[in-house]
Amino acid sequence: MIIVMKTHSSQQQLDHIVNKLESVDFKVHLSQGVHRTIIGVIGEKKDKETMKMKIEAMDGVEKVISILDSYKLTGRDFKPERSVIDIDGIKIGGEEVIVMAGPCSVENEEQIIKTATAVRDAGAKILRGGAYKPRTSPYSFQGLGEKGLKLMALAKQKTGLKIITELMNIEDIDMVCHYADILQIGARNMQNYSLLKAVGKINKPVMLKRGFASTIKEWLLAAEYIMKEGNHQVILCERGIRTFGEKTRNTLDLSSVPLIHKLSHLPIVVDPSHGTGKWKLVTPMARAAVACGADGLIVEVHPQPEDALSDGQQSLTPKNFQNMMYEITKIADVLERKVYCPGVVSNGII
Amino acid sequence: MIIVMKTHSSQQQLDHIVNKLESVDFKVHLSQGVHRTIIGVIGEKKDKETMKMKIEAMDGVEKVISILDSYKLTGRDFKPERSVIDIDGIKIGGEEVIVMAGPCSVENEEQIIKTATAVRDAGAKILRGGAYKPRTSPYSFQGLGEKGLKLMALAKQKTGLKIITELMNIEDIDMVCHYADILQIGARNMQNYSLLKAVGKINKPVMLKRGFASTIKEWLLAAEYIMKEGNHQVILCERGIRTFGEKTRNTLDLSSVPLIHKLSHLPIVVDPSHGTGKWKLVTPMARAAVACGADGLIVEVHPQPEDALSDGQQSLTPKNFQNMMYEITKIADVLERKVYCPGVVSNGII
Amino acid sequence: MIIVMKTHSSQQQLDHIVNKLESVDFKVHLSQGVHRTIIGVIGEKKDKETMKMKIEAMDGVEKVISILDSYKLTGRDFKPERSVIDIDGIKIGGEEVIVMAGPCSVENEEQIIKTATAVRDAGAKILRGGAYKPRTSPYSFQGLGEKGLKLMALAKQKTGLKIITELMNIEDIDMVCHYADILQIGARNMQNYSLLKAVGKINKPVMLKRGFASTIKEWLLAAEYIMKEGNHQVILCERGIRTFGEKTRNTLDLSSVPLIHKLSHLPIVVDPSHGTGKWKLVTPMARAAVACGADGLIVEVHPQPEDALSDGQQSLTPKNFQNMMYEITKIADVLERKVYCPGVVSNGII
Amino acid sequence: MIIVMKTHSSQQQLDHIVNKLESVDFKVHLSQGVHRTIIGVIGEKKDKETMKMKIEAMDGVEKVISILDSYKLTGRDFKPERSVIDIDGIKIGGEEVIVMAGPCSVENEEQIIKTATAVRDAGAKILRGGAYKPRTSPYSFQGLGEKGLKLMALAKQKTGLKIITELMNIEDIDMVCHYADILQIGARNMQNYSLLKAVGKINKPVMLKRGFASTIKEWLLAAEYIMKEGNHQVILCERGIRTFGEKTRNTLDLSSVPLIHKLSHLPIVVDPSHGTGKWKLVTPMARAAVACGADGLIVEVHPQPEDALSDGQQSLTPKNFQNMMYEITKIADVLERKVYCPGVVSNGII
Repeated sequence: MIIVMKTHSSQQQLDHIVNKLESVDFKVHLSQGVHRTIIGVIGEKKDKETMKMKIEAMDGVEKVISILDSYKLTGRDFKPERSVIDIDGIKIGGEEVIVMAGPCSVENEEQIIKTATAVRDAGAKILRGGAYKPRTSPYSFQGLGEKGLKLMALAKQKTGLKIITELMNIEDIDMVCHYADILQIGARNMQNYSLLKAVGKINKPVMLKRGFASTIKEWLLAAEYIMKEGNHQVILCERGIRTFGEKTRNTLDLSSVPLIHKLSHLPIVVDPSHGTGKWKLVTPMARAAVACGADGLIVEVHPQPEDALSDGQQSLTPKNFQNMMYEITKIADVLERKVYCPGVVSNGII
Repeated sequence: MIIVMKTHSSQQQLDHIVNKLESVDFKVHLSQGVHRTIIGVIGEKKDKETMKMKIEAMDGVEKVISILDSYKLTGRDFKPERSVIDIDGIKIGGEEVIVMAGPCSVENEEQIIKTATAVRDAGAKILRGGAYKPRTSPYSFQGLGEKGLKLMALAKQKTGLKIITELMNIEDIDMVCHYADILQIGARNMQNYSLLKAVGKINKPVMLKRGFASTIKEWLLAAEYIMKEGNHQVILCERGIRTFGEKTRNTLDLSSVPLIHKLSHLPIVVDPSHGTGKWKLVTPMARAAVACGADGLIVEVHPQPEDALSDGQQSLTPKNFQNMMYEITKIADVLERKVYCPGVVSNGII
Repeated sequence: MIIVMKTHSSQQQLDHIVNKLESVDFKVHLSQGVHRTIIGVIGEKKDKETMKMKIEAMDGVEKVISILDSYKLTGRDFKPERSVIDIDGIKIGGEEVIVMAGPCSVENEEQIIKTATAVRDAGAKILRGGAYKPRTSPYSFQGLGEKGLKLMALAKQKTGLKIITELMNIEDIDMVCHYADILQIGARNMQNYSLLKAVGKINKPVMLKRGFASTIKEWLLAAEYIMKEGNHQVILCERGIRTFGEKTRNTLDLSSVPLIHKLSHLPIVVDPSHGTGKWKLVTPMARAAVACGADGLIVEVHPQPEDALSDGQQSLTPKNFQNMMYEITKIADVLERKVYCPGVVSNGII
Repeated sequence: MIIVMKTHSSQQQLDHIVNKLESVDFKVHLSQGVHRTIIGVIGEKKDKETMKMKIEAMDGVEKVISILDSYKLTGRDFKPERSVIDIDGIKIGGEEVIVMAGPCSVENEEQIIKTATAVRDAGAKILRGGAYKPRTSPYSFQGLGEKGLKLMALAKQKTGLKIITELMNIEDIDMVCHYADILQIGARNMQNYSLLKAVGKINKPVMLKRGFASTIKEWLLAAEYIMKEGNHQVILCERGIRTFGEKTRNTLDLSSVPLIHKLSHLPIVVDPSHGTGKWKLVTPMARAAVACGADGLIVEVHPQPEDALSDGQQSLTPKNFQNMMYEITKIADVLERKVYCPGVVSNGII
């Protein structure tokens, strides 16, 4: 932490700050610049953020600058090698690029079985599908609830796919855990700290979507909430951020992929469906995501997008999904990674 | 809803869309533009958003444009006159501009009693204070929990102030309701729909802070979640939005005040403390908020900001707060509204 | 400037950086943190930004943090007392809040004379009006050019108002200076540095609008371009920034008013017309602007907004403008500032 | 254009609007919704934007919605097949992905020759280099001016590379055209309409960078300014947009690549150097850009980034550039496009 004093701050103000810092065991280095005094603060206190805010409130202070972000468990300094999340042999963060696919919402048995079969046959390893849906309007379809989870379990049984589904509510945690292989925390709940703490106490992988206006730092600190409680099986998911852009639902921030790999050991998957909101952009952005190093993709697929109860405009048909799988397999080859895409020889996976 | 067809869309594509719409009882008006066919869709279906997304997924469609936002209960069409939320005689949304003030976090008895007394003496009617704190980092002070609520109750008893405090967790709802006169839903939980539904079922005023990257439409739809469950005592709170701005914590969007008054009957208060993040900006922005029509303010005050466990940099001292009250009283006069500010004659309130 | 080294940076990397800095006469303070070495760099070089970028490119460096912004002439350290720009006795930045008003574009003699007379009678001191219009589409009305300037000169002659108009092109500088009392640099040209340097060389006040996605720092540095060439008569104008907001043309960032007053000695006026894009929001935001300390307003007024060739949707009628003047006069009173509003006694100006 | 009337608008207000529209030869379709009247407006007027703003100013109007964007010459409706810009046989927009590379600023002969040779040997076809530099601070290095252009000409002579360089000022247009094969319009000047009109009158390719807060629509309309004057040789360049992101200089919006290809016939190249501001992110984002369909790349390369006079932190060394070329060649293969990368067999180009 660096404290920049005002040009005309007094010796008394300086002493007051130094005393305050030393009283809680920070070490202090003064350095006299041309016009200002700069105070370097050294020490490994847990709550530096609070100290920063206190000092900003003190007289004579121009500003306080943090030197380092405050995530710990999620950082590469804590764990230099990349984490691999293993779901019964399906490894996210390893050599293979894992694809999760399925409808936005589970609607009925025929829809989910049909979709699950199609995405499995095209190479997906994990079935996505919402049973509890966070919808902007209370008048939109809110999901089938446990009935939806049961339909996903049926699809799992028939196809062998693993299941990822969203948890919105602490009360539902046991029930959702009963059915799901991975819990999804949605973008709107990224800073729902009660929920984060709750999933931090269970032993199941959690996919944490980036909040639509969250910085990389806030995202990693949200993951830190989960890991601090003991659950280190966290997968990050970039799904687009809110900008002034007028032609896409969100702006997919693909630079977060190499950035996260630089800052953190956690795997990161990309959601080009929510990231663009337009199915025609999904395949190009899926290719781009794999090209910049994504550890996986999560993609919306619906047998008949025009009949979908949610997100039809951004869902791929099974046929378009198959084509996407074919293309990303080739991209993965270039990076010496693998995609499971039946019918395509990808670094010899088939 | 308006559907814009592509330049070279076919008659078959058009028929398919028209049939789909008519099959669910929408009325359809075709209009042939110079290069395109435009379909006007009329009907009052509850879930137009879903239909919009379905049609966007259909062949031949260039884009679909919503004509009207989908909030109902929160809109002025539903209730033309302004709502006044009455908390034992303190009326938010009426002639008086109500001020809520207090520390970011409740820290200890001395701090909360001292602050409560000071803000009451300066004219505040409601005491703010966090017992459960949503903090970006899990290593920051998380609040005193029920102990904090008890201290607020003590302050209420000693000062006569009403209490507003944040609810983060459905599990805590009974306990927090036991102590609080107004429940606050924080910015990070604005789209925590489980929580919104839960507070929609109780009989107590709820202050809903705007999510830091939420549009006006999303904000009103979040309020709609609460009202749809039966609780119509909703107060909106503008607290700044996230932008590229580098010198303030958020960008206080004061235009939301007259906009909300135009679109909705709900009262709106402004939080200049979080809205700026710098105590020196709080008073000027408090004046501006009252000047553009805010129904109230919520302001952070701490007896010694430099010792605050959170948000010291944006907290007013009791003395600065007193000065702010004095200034906004004069501004309120201009708008023929009142502020309770002991010692100042404001439209004869004293 | 503070350089944060990587956790595992080498002594050699450190020496290399220190040598480089010392070779160009910076002084260096090393401080060994718990996990990292921090280098404090002291010295008053003109181009610190370049040195910052160089060091960021060096091995072993985690990041480089600037301590202070690089504006000089625009800063309060350079000139502690506020600047007052004097246009033949009309003083911007002084006790009086100066109002500039007029149509978006000059359209014809009747329109400009009618508007000028109306705004003069309501208390405006300066007539705004565009002769050269920067329009998003090349198919929109581009302004009358010199003919427009002549019509403004005629209006000046008939009303006694001073004139402000936009300069878009260095080639036009002599002609525009011939007619205008204040040159306006529009938001789209805020970083058109050739144009800034050109107006820096003339002896006439310049109003510099904030770019719609410019930070406070970039804005002050743009003003610095003008002042560095010798022209210190710079007026800043906040006109709204681009955000995700969907119901206003821009988001008026009123916190920039007290911020600019804190950082700079230059006066700042507010444009609530472009800042909101909706005439119904103009008066409330004008009140708010004056309440937080604006030194002036620039407002679009048109005798018949529905016939305006540009910006009709955000133009006040003369009657609404008169009402706005009345309201801000009262607000200015509270701040012990004056507005010239015929018929209203404002601190005795009449 | 669709006009949505207010719930309680009068017949008189409606008639007034209809008359106004019909008086300028628009055709009008009325449609009576459940609560509102909707007016569909048909006609191909050049300046619909102005009419839109006028109507928004009329009584009884809730809002006016544009159906279609107003670009014409840049749109695919105007020209369905993709444009290929041919610079003496180097074709941008064709099968080959063209790479432009070089230093941010031209600094001296050794630097530019060394860089030019290195990037040519690695496969670049066009040399980038700034002689006139738009710098945020007036105290930063502003470029060598014509001396810089002469050094680029020398490098062209020695390497055979074509030249792209920025034009900031209409006065310099003849001189810059004398040296450059492609003129670059920088992000800060994207809406400098005088400059756009000027380059619209010459016969030389222009690369138009996206403004850092410009929508896709504004960008295409800026291109429209150039094309309307007669110059159809426009290349678009995505270089990142401004968001709240804290760890990159800009947020590279790669979805603009497939979007532009859908909306426009113009080629689009991507600048991963400015798009990220960090050299470690350049290669992954270059791969992603090619993967989603970019027609070219423009990349900063410097022989010794730590000595660069600008942008050292985002410049690749020649060796890292060579590696980037190798990787994108492989990605281009997947899309059945070619990159010229000596030593790599890319669809048989070598």
